[in-house]
This record gives sequence, C-alpha cells and structure tokens, in this order.
Amino acid sequence: MSIQPVQAFEPPYLMAVFTNVRTPDETGYPETNARMNEIVRANPGFLGYESARTPGGLGITVAYFRDHASLAAWREDMEHQAAMKRGRADWYESYTLHVGTVERSHGFVRDHG
Amino acid sequence: MSIQPVQAFEPPYLMAVFTNVRTPDETGYPETNARMNEIVRANPGFLGYESARTPGGLGITVAYFRDHASLAAWREDMEHQAAMKRGRADWYESYTLHVGTVERSHGFVRDHG
Repeated sequence: MSIQPVQAFEPPYLMAVFTNVRTPDETGYPETNARMNEIVRANPGFLGYESARTPGGLGITVAYFRDHASLAAWREDMEHQAAMKRGRADWYESYTLHVGTVERSHGFVRDHG
Repeated sequence: MSIQPVQAFEPPYLMAVFTNVRTPDETGYPETNARMNEIVRANPGFLGYESARTPGGLGITVAYFRDHASLAAWREDMEHQAAMKRGRADWYESYTLHVGTVERSHGFVRDHG
C-alpha cells in the first residue's frame, strides 16, 4: 500500500489540527489510539484523518469532519473525553488544538503515466 | 532546546495544512526550504509554522497567518510560486492543501512544578 495524503474534500468542512509532544509513557497508548480510531470512524460526518510524527519530536494529527455537529459528537464522546483526560495525565508533554472551517483545498498526485 | 507545539493564537486566524509524500529527490530541497522560511518569516501576518514527518511516510506542515491578506501575500510570492512549481516537478509524489479559518484553539503544557 502506498501512502497518500487524505484527499481535498468539497468545502466547507471542518478540520481539527492536533499538534503534540509525547511523554515517554506508552502505557495504554496504542490500545486507546486503536479504540479512538474505531469511535471516530463510526461518526457519520467523519471524512478522514492523517498523522505524522518526527522521531523524538513533534506529532501532528489532522482530522476532517463534514460539519460542526459531527465534530461536536466526536469531542463530546465519553470514551474520547476519558482518553483526553488520560492524555493530559500521562501521554502528552504539551499539545495545541486548532479547530477551523476549510474554505478551499486542492490536491496533487504525480502522473507516472 | 525542547520542542513545543506552536501556541494557540487568538481566533480568528488562518491555517494552511499541507500534507505530502516526498519523492526521493533531495536536489535543491533543503536550500529552497530555508529560503521559503526566510520569506514567510518576513510576512507581517505570519504567526508561525510547524512540521512533522514520519520517516518514509507522510509529512504535515501547518502554517498560521493572522488574516487572508497575509496568507494571500505568501501564496502569491514569486519565489514561493517558483518553489511550488519545482515541488510538483521534482519533490512531491502527492500533496493536499487545506486552507481555513480557525474558530477556536487551546493548548496544554505539562506542569512539572
């Protein structure tokens, strides 16, 4: 499977940019990540997400949603709330969340033809 | 120097999320990156940017601007335009750009007190 950026969706849509630096504590992190993945994918307004992490450095995750209602459902999910609390207690040294409405987007894919 | 996410600014502000997969071609890439850095930092409405790349995988760069005018100045900069063209020719396998207005943001920094 070749890696591809998430596509450009039809604006307007929402994006949540979560930038973070992790602690060394991995306890429960992969399991919680997998569960959060399941929950967000069950959200009918969820469009996609993508993540990158520089080893030993910054991680950036961007999640895309169709509208404010679907993003609010994700934000208010009880398991997600518990995971965020756990994140502040154990997994994150620091983070910033930026939430906004996408007004334009476009993509490029190299033509190997 | 410890790595920190860019702070949460006072909304509204603009963010441009550039997600990409690189080709193996490094020719001219670091130099152009450094020059683009200089140019964007000279933009009075530039608030900051941050980048993460999973080795062999996705890269995500997010740049933050005070308003549409400052983002437009960056987009229309002639050297930046030439760099984008070069990027499509040589450096990027694929990319997506999402531009939007941030409506809310917040940050967390662990208290080591």
